[in-house]
Amino acid sequence: MSSAAPIDLRSDTVTRPDAQMRAAMAAAEVGDDVLDGDPTMRALEERAAELLGVEASLWVPSGSMGNLVALFLHLQRGDRFFAPQQAHVLDSEIGTAAWLAGGMPQPLPWAAGPGRITAQAVRAAASGRGPYFALRNRLLCLENTHNTAGGTTTSPREHAELVAAARETGLLVHLDGARIWNAAVAQKTTPAELTRGVDTVQACLSKGLGAPVGSVVGGSADFVREARRVRKMLGGGVRQGGVLASAGLVALERVDRLAEDHENAQLLAGGLRELGWDVAVPETNIVMVHVPDAAKAVEECGRAGVLALSLGGRLRLITHCDVSRADVRRALDRIAGVAGK
Amino acid sequence: MSSAAPIDLRSDTVTRPDAQMRAAMAAAEVGDDVLDGDPTMRALEERAAELLGVEASLWVPSGSMGNLVALFLHLQRGDRFFAPQQAHVLDSEIGTAAWLAGGMPQPLPWAAGPGRITAQAVRAAASGRGPYFALRNRLLCLENTHNTAGGTTTSPREHAELVAAARETGLLVHLDGARIWNAAVAQKTTPAELTRGVDTVQACLSKGLGAPVGSVVGGSADFVREARRVRKMLGGGVRQGGVLASAGLVALERVDRLAEDHENAQLLAGGLRELGWDVAVPETNIVMVHVPDAAKAVEECGRAGVLALSLGGRLRLITHCDVSRADVRRALDRIAGVAGK
Amino acid sequence: MSSAAPIDLRSDTVTRPDAQMRAAMAAAEVGDDVLDGDPTMRALEERAAELLGVEASLWVPSGSMGNLVALFLHLQRGDRFFAPQQAHVLDSEIGTAAWLAGGMPQPLPWAAGPGRITAQAVRAAASGRGPYFALRNRLLCLENTHNTAGGTTTSPREHAELVAAARETGLLVHLDGARIWNAAVAQKTTPAELTRGVDTVQACLSKGLGAPVGSVVGGSADFVREARRVRKMLGGGVRQGGVLASAGLVALERVDRLAEDHENAQLLAGGLRELGWDVAVPETNIVMVHVPDAAKAVEECGRAGVLALSLGGRLRLITHCDVSRADVRRALDRIAGVAGK
Amino acid sequence: MSSAAPIDLRSDTVTRPDAQMRAAMAAAEVGDDVLDGDPTMRALEERAAELLGVEASLWVPSGSMGNLVALFLHLQRGDRFFAPQQAHVLDSEIGTAAWLAGGMPQPLPWAAGPGRITAQAVRAAASGRGPYFALRNRLLCLENTHNTAGGTTTSPREHAELVAAARETGLLVHLDGARIWNAAVAQKTTPAELTRGVDTVQACLSKGLGAPVGSVVGGSADFVREARRVRKMLGGGVRQGGVLASAGLVALERVDRLAEDHENAQLLAGGLRELGWDVAVPETNIVMVHVPDAAKAVEECGRAGVLALSLGGRLRLITHCDVSRADVRRALDRIAGVAGK
Repeated sequence: MSSAAPIDLRSDTVTRPDAQMRAAMAAAEVGDDVLDGDPTMRALEERAAELLGVEASLWVPSGSMGNLVALFLHLQRGDRFFAPQQAHVLDSEIGTAAWLAGGMPQPLPWAAGPGRITAQAVRAAASGRGPYFALRNRLLCLENTHNTAGGTTTSPREHAELVAAARETGLLVHLDGARIWNAAVAQKTTPAELTRGVDTVQACLSKGLGAPVGSVVGGSADFVREARRVRKMLGGGVRQGGVLASAGLVALERVDRLAEDHENAQLLAGGLRELGWDVAVPETNIVMVHVPDAAKAVEECGRAGVLALSLGGRLRLITHCDVSRADVRRALDRIAGVAGK
Repeated sequence: MSSAAPIDLRSDTVTRPDAQMRAAMAAAEVGDDVLDGDPTMRALEERAAELLGVEASLWVPSGSMGNLVALFLHLQRGDRFFAPQQAHVLDSEIGTAAWLAGGMPQPLPWAAGPGRITAQAVRAAASGRGPYFALRNRLLCLENTHNTAGGTTTSPREHAELVAAARETGLLVHLDGARIWNAAVAQKTTPAELTRGVDTVQACLSKGLGAPVGSVVGGSADFVREARRVRKMLGGGVRQGGVLASAGLVALERVDRLAEDHENAQLLAGGLRELGWDVAVPETNIVMVHVPDAAKAVEECGRAGVLALSLGGRLRLITHCDVSRADVRRALDRIAGVAGK
Repeated sequence: MSSAAPIDLRSDTVTRPDAQMRAAMAAAEVGDDVLDGDPTMRALEERAAELLGVEASLWVPSGSMGNLVALFLHLQRGDRFFAPQQAHVLDSEIGTAAWLAGGMPQPLPWAAGPGRITAQAVRAAASGRGPYFALRNRLLCLENTHNTAGGTTTSPREHAELVAAARETGLLVHLDGARIWNAAVAQKTTPAELTRGVDTVQACLSKGLGAPVGSVVGGSADFVREARRVRKMLGGGVRQGGVLASAGLVALERVDRLAEDHENAQLLAGGLRELGWDVAVPETNIVMVHVPDAAKAVEECGRAGVLALSLGGRLRLITHCDVSRADVRRALDRIAGVAGK
Repeated sequence: MSSAAPIDLRSDTVTRPDAQMRAAMAAAEVGDDVLDGDPTMRALEERAAELLGVEASLWVPSGSMGNLVALFLHLQRGDRFFAPQQAHVLDSEIGTAAWLAGGMPQPLPWAAGPGRITAQAVRAAASGRGPYFALRNRLLCLENTHNTAGGTTTSPREHAELVAAARETGLLVHLDGARIWNAAVAQKTTPAELTRGVDTVQACLSKGLGAPVGSVVGGSADFVREARRVRKMLGGGVRQGGVLASAGLVALERVDRLAEDHENAQLLAGGLRELGWDVAVPETNIVMVHVPDAAKAVEECGRAGVLALSLGGRLRLITHCDVSRADVRRALDRIAGVAGK
């Protein structure tokens, strides 16, 4: 990245396939995945299932579709589900969890820290409703890392407690693990450890891992069979998907390099703090900055050559594989002159 | 009510049509309300609109259908709406606001007291989302009185502030006024004062007012025209509905007598407090009691001859037209021996 | 009916409760049917189930809601169902079978006469689709009598063949029996004979039987338990419904008198034919007349003092309990001068 | 293709990206298409719009999603739409036109030949319903070529008549042009000629044109803006989609070569006829064979080394860019020994 080009910290979704990925895509063995299967798709889905500790998985064009397929299959029309406040399924999927999957959401407060709910709140929410209400409590939807809370992680112990509370109260569990890879690296554990006990999990290939397109949604083999049908319903079945799956396979070999993004986020947050900005200590690759006027701050950073997003009234900056340690230093230099803090 | 019979304080929905209502029903002029109209229906809908301060209204078989029709017409699939925590549309209508009306709900906290939200929270919730989210903020759904909060009221001033906040931020406003009559009596004002500025309002005829069946949903004449079609969709169009509307017309003459229920609720709450129960001061006809084990308390009261409900972990008792001052005293005598507090 | 008043042959839904029904309504024992049951409702539902030959039934405000509840419970989103062309669930329920119950309809042709489909067509439609289509064939929806075909009946033998074809091909069966009473009378059998083998049936109390409001939907006890919840979802749960159920109980005693309506329909059709109109021989109480311009014919009949409807390009006249033999003769006299044929 | 390998005539969706396409994918310039756009996507969407004669277009992962997005935006819940019998939106999209887009379908008969409806039927279907039905006639959905009818085409003149009938009766028009390229080549005209007057059109890149993944849906710029949001709702928004769009751009340069597939289909049909099979003259690249037992015929052809599908009780064979003239001859040789005809 030349020093004149803007440094793009808006999202880890902006990452572009590199030469290795493009070569894999160009050489991918393909088939008709709707008709009778694409061998590279199958390899990706098996590898992802293995890493996520689930029986099987299914490629989907986006994380939103992965969450939607899972919620659609878990919920009957009118069932209630619980999710942390500001979860992606509540705020960023255009209401599909409600009108399309059929769920009545109830947000749970961040009682255990930013983005973190408590087992006690799960138990309280799921219990104590009589038949008069006729509202069936059905699903707990977790998010690890929690995006709008600033990439915060749920530890294996917390995760186990939440799953246990759900089981006690008869709830299914879906994990929106769009950035489960970041959570695992930050918690120095495996993704499988962080999906233990869930019914289904969604994980993105196209964020920090750098694949151009796609996510996987996993669970039991039965779930994946049904999920394949729902994916077709939503129009997410693709033909020679191997050209994308090949990039996904490369991406899955790169989970460990997320540690670098997390270090860069630390560097960025530390530098911003030294510049006098009100910034939380990042747990993963997301840096959240409290500013008086987020839209204005985004604009000023942009003029200085650093691209960021405004999210929930804060400035959000994300490190990723297309941003080097040197780029972060350069970004800090550019922001030094910005008054938006 | 004989002293041996149980005193039914479970809900004001248990009220039965009295002789005057039954006579009205037996004599009602009727027509085919789906085909070309029922004259008694028309009279009821006009009278209700007048009392509620709206252009027109439509009879519906239940308050749930009234709210559903309004939300269905206000919301496009995926639009977000706001409502106070534990609102009836969120907790007690089997998720239809989500899957059927198509809305993605976001509960607002009771920051101004039990059941009461603030204009500031409305503004904050409705603002500040960028197009990235693509979630359209569309509707504020109020509830006055708020049932699960304990029949709490929103004053004309508070109401005006909430409506103003909604208007500023581009939200439509629906009022779930199932017990708007109680709110008006308690606030010593008219129902029309408490619907000022809303787009639509739902009000029940079958609760404290004593009609056997039915609610009305009101708004502009255009809204009611569309609402009639949605009612037919949901299967709520009825033929010779005048037999029910006649009871509704009688009910609408009885708004003032709700004051008696409110006094009885005060008497009941005072008596319970003297008996050592942890009870809130009722604003209208709903008495909420904090007990260690609500299900057990309901059971013990029942054995003593007083019927109550468990709601959100509390004991709920409601006064209504089929319960006299003497009944309330008798209920207190019976509860005196109950250990459930 | 005075000779000057219009004779209303638009529909048997225009029938008004008579003195006996009104007296029953005024005296009805009632309870809260949403909370813990209304004794008159219970009596009606038991009696209707007995007559319809099903385990249990549920009162609903309209036939449309009865059909909707059944289809909602039988169909998963995207399942295919079959129904005769121009069935009420296809043409006259505002598309709810599709968007709300979630079904993809496929009309079957009237290969066995007006309103009558064949077992062979059921088998052909339900078979032979591979998994590539992923469209699940789920339900056969019958209609007896078939309204827009002109009140045509399906005989017990035909009914049995259709049900057998559905069973062989794995389809559930719902019977829209809005006018099942007319079918039974015309076929000189019992309603139970005409529901044999179905999973669910809907039957109207408010058409030829004369109750002001309501239908029942019946099936297994398990179905009715779930149907009660769906009815509440749709806003069709009512409180002191006994005031309506009492009229329904009276109506159910009056099935036999439909024979009179059928004779009147014969008289009407015969008279019209003599007047030179192109009219089908009615099987029940619906008379269908082919006219060059149905809207114009309706208007001219109306001016002559006979109310009719235009339906699918034809003129529809219906006999019912509020129209006597003398009224039919009077109607013929009035139509004699009409040029619309 | 070695003479031992099976010749795959199941569908033109099995076509694989060739070296040129793969090179284009490997070299594609990309961006984040959800966040702020991908330049190659933009180029594809502009080029497709130009060819289709519409103002703008949007890439979608599948033809099913393209149709779904259009129907979702054209239909309000409960609106009626018309489509030819056995249209893809009726039979092969898992009912989403109904439950998800919200439409109540009414199939129109093939009165003008296989897969071809008449303007007269459109007019009759869309007219003559009174407000009593409350079912809004909203959309005509065409399909050119019609897949299950055997790749039959609608001519520019027929198309113009159908569009005119829709306009007269107030219907919108969507064209499922999954194989519009084949229709244009067969009719010796341009795709734009065959979309004249429609509101929206869907066209596949992944069938005969050979791109691995994707379709486009086009219409007015306003439509495409809304369509982008609905695509995100359904989970069809992708990030660095340029890797796929680049293949789509190559595909759009290859429309003319479909003539070769059509000639091959003629060769195949002629050869089958000589072998004694009951085969229709193909208009495009789809060969439909009437056989006593389609499933058995598929199996026998498969054993002989020719892959086919069973569709609606017939044997379907499709020619495409991965099947040469020599392959077709070889297929005929192999089928010569099959008894399934």
